[in-house]
Amino acid sequence: MTRGFYIGRFQPYHNGHQKVLEQIACSSDEIVIGVGSAQESHTITNPFTAGERVLMLTQSLADLDCPFYVIPIEDIQRNALWVAHVRAMTPPFDTVYSSNPLVVQLFTEAGMTVKSIDMYERLTYSGTAIRQRMLDGEPWEHLVPPAVVNVIKEVHGVERLRQIARTD
Amino acid sequence: MTRGFYIGRFQPYHNGHQKVLEQIACSSDEIVIGVGSAQESHTITNPFTAGERVLMLTQSLADLDCPFYVIPIEDIQRNALWVAHVRAMTPPFDTVYSSNPLVVQLFTEAGMTVKSIDMYERLTYSGTAIRQRMLDGEPWEHLVPPAVVNVIKEVHGVERLRQIARTD
Amino acid sequence: MTRGFYIGRFQPYHNGHQKVLEQIACSSDEIVIGVGSAQESHTITNPFTAGERVLMLTQSLADLDCPFYVIPIEDIQRNALWVAHVRAMTPPFDTVYSSNPLVVQLFTEAGMTVKSIDMYERLTYSGTAIRQRMLDGEPWEHLVPPAVVNVIKEVHGVERLRQIARTD
Amino acid sequence: MTRGFYIGRFQPYHNGHQKVLEQIACSSDEIVIGVGSAQESHTITNPFTAGERVLMLTQSLADLDCPFYVIPIEDIQRNALWVAHVRAMTPPFDTVYSSNPLVVQLFTEAGMTVKSIDMYERLTYSGTAIRQRMLDGEPWEHLVPPAVVNVIKEVHGVERLRQIARTD
Amino acid sequence: MTRGFYIGRFQPYHNGHQKVLEQIACSSDEIVIGVGSAQESHTITNPFTAGERVLMLTQSLADLDCPFYVIPIEDIQRNALWVAHVRAMTPPFDTVYSSNPLVVQLFTEAGMTVKSIDMYERLTYSGTAIRQRMLDGEPWEHLVPPAVVNVIKEVHGVERLRQIARTD
Amino acid sequence: MTRGFYIGRFQPYHNGHQKVLEQIACSSDEIVIGVGSAQESHTITNPFTAGERVLMLTQSLADLDCPFYVIPIEDIQRNALWVAHVRAMTPPFDTVYSSNPLVVQLFTEAGMTVKSIDMYERLTYSGTAIRQRMLDGEPWEHLVPPAVVNVIKEVHGVERLRQIARTD
Repeated sequence: MTRGFYIGRFQPYHNGHQKVLEQIACSSDEIVIGVGSAQESHTITNPFTAGERVLMLTQSLADLDCPFYVIPIEDIQRNALWVAHVRAMTPPFDTVYSSNPLVVQLFTEAGMTVKSIDMYERLTYSGTAIRQRMLDGEPWEHLVPPAVVNVIKEVHGVERLRQIARTD
Repeated sequence: MTRGFYIGRFQPYHNGHQKVLEQIACSSDEIVIGVGSAQESHTITNPFTAGERVLMLTQSLADLDCPFYVIPIEDIQRNALWVAHVRAMTPPFDTVYSSNPLVVQLFTEAGMTVKSIDMYERLTYSGTAIRQRMLDGEPWEHLVPPAVVNVIKEVHGVERLRQIARTD
Repeated sequence: MTRGFYIGRFQPYHNGHQKVLEQIACSSDEIVIGVGSAQESHTITNPFTAGERVLMLTQSLADLDCPFYVIPIEDIQRNALWVAHVRAMTPPFDTVYSSNPLVVQLFTEAGMTVKSIDMYERLTYSGTAIRQRMLDGEPWEHLVPPAVVNVIKEVHGVERLRQIARTD
Repeated sequence: MTRGFYIGRFQPYHNGHQKVLEQIACSSDEIVIGVGSAQESHTITNPFTAGERVLMLTQSLADLDCPFYVIPIEDIQRNALWVAHVRAMTPPFDTVYSSNPLVVQLFTEAGMTVKSIDMYERLTYSGTAIRQRMLDGEPWEHLVPPAVVNVIKEVHGVERLRQIARTD
Repeated sequence: MTRGFYIGRFQPYHNGHQKVLEQIACSSDEIVIGVGSAQESHTITNPFTAGERVLMLTQSLADLDCPFYVIPIEDIQRNALWVAHVRAMTPPFDTVYSSNPLVVQLFTEAGMTVKSIDMYERLTYSGTAIRQRMLDGEPWEHLVPPAVVNVIKEVHGVERLRQIARTD
Repeated sequence: MTRGFYIGRFQPYHNGHQKVLEQIACSSDEIVIGVGSAQESHTITNPFTAGERVLMLTQSLADLDCPFYVIPIEDIQRNALWVAHVRAMTPPFDTVYSSNPLVVQLFTEAGMTVKSIDMYERLTYSGTAIRQRMLDGEPWEHLVPPAVVNVIKEVHGVERLRQIARTD
């Protein structure tokens, strides 16, 4: 049994994440997915709650041919403890897949196997770009899985983001 | 779509929990399961990490005829904020199933639908009793699902509990 | 201008507290009242929120012949920082009135003037005793100011306490 | 009995706040005033302690024709829990008055009545502008109630702000 | 270069600790000493601040024939992160010396070398017993190094302990 | 017995710090050195752990003609409590040496003696400049004591810093 680990903030979960996870799915028996900055929500860079993001991921990955776990991971603001924190919250995993330099460094220092992965078409599929489109009233729905569109509609996510972004 | 919520510490997950969840499964479209006191581990009353408990639950419920989410919930030490904390970490749910008086009170005050459930043969199926059996070297494996036996063996859970329980 | 400081948990605010504050009122120009363990609520020893306790105090002291401030003070779990914490949250005060040995010690070590006060008929007027009466269905209303009876009724405080005290 | 809620950082409390509170006073029986970011002090944007700000507010509002509560509210860094946090620390209120987009959004999502209010001549009456005037040695006293001038003088607030703003 | 690690609460530092450290000194090039529960003080079980305990240790070990580091370690309330926390706060060490079952378990699970050591005459040399003697007015000075007697006198430690132990 | 206090982040410890400490050494019997932002590591501005910084300091000061204590000080994010926090973690000191305006202000408000010191050739000896040199591959070793070069090499500090600084 091999288990891979992947972490992101998923604000929101988009097609780039989906591609990466489909790729990892081929090389592990199971995948553990961390939803990072879980305690954040209702900000311009982190509009969605951890629970909303868990929902986006789980529904979008319903057809994935690989069992997966979706685990909210709260920030602990202490890099030297972060790997221990992640490991305490998740089922044991043997390989970390990441393109984030800090994540790579921390798991490498902890002696774990880390495989560098490339984001998929990262200029197109980017949380920052999608949130900006939501703010600007431009189409964003084609950049995320259909299930994500539904979740965001149900929680009135675009309206939330726009209200938060108003100036005082 | 209806979603039920159930929370426990699952130290360890046992047949009593399994019976309750099988029962809830019949009355909801989906179940959200909170793994409470997620930050606790390596103590006599909370020997297992959140990740180990997520593993116990997910593997034991593999054949459950109802989609489910398993979400670690860290304590926040502030009862008045606890419902908001749980809701931020989980997909939206409409009904809470609980036998815990405080959980019932907090969700009721928050205006949510709470259904009281009975623990199944609670003297037999009890985390406290199972941990005591582990300490005393008595059989405990028949009180938990087979997957839980495997997880505990893999993490050397009984040895961990006994070591922690030694006096200085 | 002299300002006195008094702190309690006020679970609930009762006639003993009222007597003490009326006494302090005579010897200061203004009184600062700290509502301790402000973050606690919905437990058997701390059933009421800070806001409910602020309400009990403010309404009960409406006729006090001395301006007063009611300030929630969250615990910080570090005794060596507690005086600095209290002073940051409150208007400046010159005299501390307390019968609590730790409060006396901490303010004394900080070089402040501390006046020891006696609780008023402390066996009769005691938060513990009043909460026990609520649990036992015995009369408790005569032990607290009328405004406190109203606040507790409005928030269904007795029912809350009894529900929390039930065994699982 | 109706109670309105208003929150600000009040760094420092100024005539714009005073105008808004006088306006709210006409439409509620009582007002609950939250002193936000209560844990902050001794920074360029938050020079004053919560206690100093409580003092500014209480003394400036001495003649207000409406009972009021002034409650320090510490940040909790978790937007999804913030409304529950505020409500635990304050007497119950039914209407929120705010011009802050995030405050409006969070209380609206919590199902509360929120009334949008305009800041009063906000370019003139602005904490940022007043602090800059203090740093620049320009007159600021006419922008705040007389009681605020006194509080700031007593705590040597301008000197504190200037010292903090020096470069290392 | 080998470095040993030893941790205690040192409330207060006593001859039993001294014997153990003298023993460890023979088998390591350097010693790292953690002052545990560093955030605790002014309680019956933890009367002394971390700084006071650092002073007791450093002065008592002045003649130790082995360089040492004395590092306050705050509790983090999460056992699964505790080893990472300790290692982040201390110079790298290769061997842990401990008689505490939890410390042994946590470092062992982290893959470190742990050597079990016996407390020296632990019924005689015990923090609990020494604090009780202080409370009871019995002699305790012969149970601690002379430097500890001086530190405790300077901070009026016995008076502090007795005041804290008074009933309300 | 006089004790001086000096605090810095020491990211990394450099010759400018060394000069200042040698100067303070002449005017105190003992020196207490606080390692600030102790909880930070693995960021571009705070690459080194508290333990690594303790090591840099202790080894660089081996020949200092003055006993010293090196104490990690975690940030507490509350300026009004910071002096109490520092004092709880350190042996008692009577004089603070600092060039940091906030440190000066906080200790001054607490009524302590503060002596302003100048950083030594601060454009040359600056943590920011040294970290930038590490990133740019320019020589930095001549700006820090030899012991610091060794510590950074052993923990692969330059590689760590460069990895963290990579863009995602």
